[in-house]
Amino acid sequence: MDWLHGLVASDMAAVDRIIHERLSSAVPLIPDLATHLIDSGGKRLRPMLAVAAARLNGYRGTSHTRLAAAVEFIHTATLLHDDVVDVSALRRGKIAANVVWGNKSSVLVGDFLFSRAFQLMVETGDLTVLDVLSNASAVIAEGEVLQLRSANNLATTRDDYLRVITAKTAALFSAAAESGAMIAGASAAHIEAMRSYGFDLGVAFQLIDDALDYSGRQAQMGKSIGDDFHEAKVTLPVIIAVERADEDAKQFWRRTIEDGAQHEGDLKRAIAYVDETGAIEETRALARHHADRAQSALAALPALEIRDALSAVAEFCLARAY
Amino acid sequence: MDWLHGLVASDMAAVDRIIHERLSSAVPLIPDLATHLIDSGGKRLRPMLAVAAARLNGYRGTSHTRLAAAVEFIHTATLLHDDVVDVSALRRGKIAANVVWGNKSSVLVGDFLFSRAFQLMVETGDLTVLDVLSNASAVIAEGEVLQLRSANNLATTRDDYLRVITAKTAALFSAAAESGAMIAGASAAHIEAMRSYGFDLGVAFQLIDDALDYSGRQAQMGKSIGDDFHEAKVTLPVIIAVERADEDAKQFWRRTIEDGAQHEGDLKRAIAYVDETGAIEETRALARHHADRAQSALAALPALEIRDALSAVAEFCLARAY
Repeated sequence: MDWLHGLVASDMAAVDRIIHERLSSAVPLIPDLATHLIDSGGKRLRPMLAVAAARLNGYRGTSHTRLAAAVEFIHTATLLHDDVVDVSALRRGKIAANVVWGNKSSVLVGDFLFSRAFQLMVETGDLTVLDVLSNASAVIAEGEVLQLRSANNLATTRDDYLRVITAKTAALFSAAAESGAMIAGASAAHIEAMRSYGFDLGVAFQLIDDALDYSGRQAQMGKSIGDDFHEAKVTLPVIIAVERADEDAKQFWRRTIEDGAQHEGDLKRAIAYVDETGAIEETRALARHHADRAQSALAALPALEIRDALSAVAEFCLARAY
Repeated sequence: MDWLHGLVASDMAAVDRIIHERLSSAVPLIPDLATHLIDSGGKRLRPMLAVAAARLNGYRGTSHTRLAAAVEFIHTATLLHDDVVDVSALRRGKIAANVVWGNKSSVLVGDFLFSRAFQLMVETGDLTVLDVLSNASAVIAEGEVLQLRSANNLATTRDDYLRVITAKTAALFSAAAESGAMIAGASAAHIEAMRSYGFDLGVAFQLIDDALDYSGRQAQMGKSIGDDFHEAKVTLPVIIAVERADEDAKQFWRRTIEDGAQHEGDLKRAIAYVDETGAIEETRALARHHADRAQSALAALPALEIRDALSAVAEFCLARAY
């Protein structure tokens, strides 16, 4: 991550300037609330993909930084709307915006950021970029609605789960990388390679994220875990653990996920089940598979240092696991 | 209204087809929820403005129907997000499940519609249209946030109120009319005339809407009134009534709006105060002023039947009052 960041540091500084400029509004609540989330230490992975994809494809202009800021705004809008939706009190270790400012503010400031994202894309003057990112936005919303249906639902299959994460996470990763290459005027083959890299990276990223939510090690490091469990989301670790559950464990999952009746000590027990059944290991193995595919996709692209750094990002996503 | 509708009926039928086509999704909740709102008998005034503006300026293509569908999607997304209730439903640290699921779906389906709107605009291939409508979307979100601040706040001034309604309502009316003219390739003067017409029509429309919410006559017709009062929104009728209130009435407004402590019979009393002080009459007079301005703006445009029908729409907006 640091490697890639070092290679695009001045671009990312420009992205940051654009982000803060465009947060401004005559209505102070908007920058207040948005800054709370945007400056809370996110790694800016998605905008970095857009910038890196443009640079890897030889871009020399400045529109890629606007595009990257737009990607971060779409991501932040999604988080704000997700905070309303999920009752998670913590987002990146801080109290979720909706708890401080109210649900309605989170929704409206998310809408503002979403609009700002489209304003920035219009400024790039590139309709293909607008096409890719408006499609991604629709897919993200569909993925989030699909996810609603899998909550409290132990009948959720591996396929259902993969549909959700490809829509809610991989779609924006892939759109960021693809549109970065597009703005650079890359060949169709290079654009497709970047899209493919972004997509599999996004899938790997989300799989690891979902594994981490049941990681005892993570808890020892003082990080918040158990959000998915408390919201009764059915992620891959749960799907696998349920497949391999004995009658006692099945009953436990029915009570805690289907009925949502959770008591003290249940998270610990869930983590134990997920661990014992090898569900974390299998989730990680699937993430490894997608990270490999992401890395393979890069082979079609110019052999520049930035390409190696993008490959390292795939490793970084996996290494987060433990 | 019927006059204008008659003149653009086949266009509006096409708009309706596009709306229903684009509501489709592999996720059934999306069309289910969105159709419920979109088919609930709205007059489709905003998309009709876009279509009429294009036709009045001699447009012969079909992109204007896509643009109009996009305008209706943005409007519907705004309504859905406006439905989101706040965490005053928070009880003992938990949120009642039905409230959460309701919020969740409204937010996400709104996001989906918003994305679909931008997809449709991309299909028109016209960046200026995207520019106008992404700007309008940002302004609408700002207006809605501004409105949050005026709730429960009797210090809200007439200027504050006008800022809210120009942003949350007039911005989309004006963008619809302006972009319709743009897509027709109209002259700068004609585009500006349509923008100006849409803007003042929107202001007049919202003023009447806010007056109707305190209309006893409206209540006799079996229509819902008192929404703004119950949500402690400070609209122009309240601002005027408070300006002219005696000590008893002032205390009443402080209790019901600032403290939000409302009891049975309070709405009736609010209606009486608003009526006695002439607040409804003054609100209507201001709406008349803006309707006149909207009609004057039309003078710059081609003297076609559609222009006269647009002028009649301004009368219709006012006539809704009683």
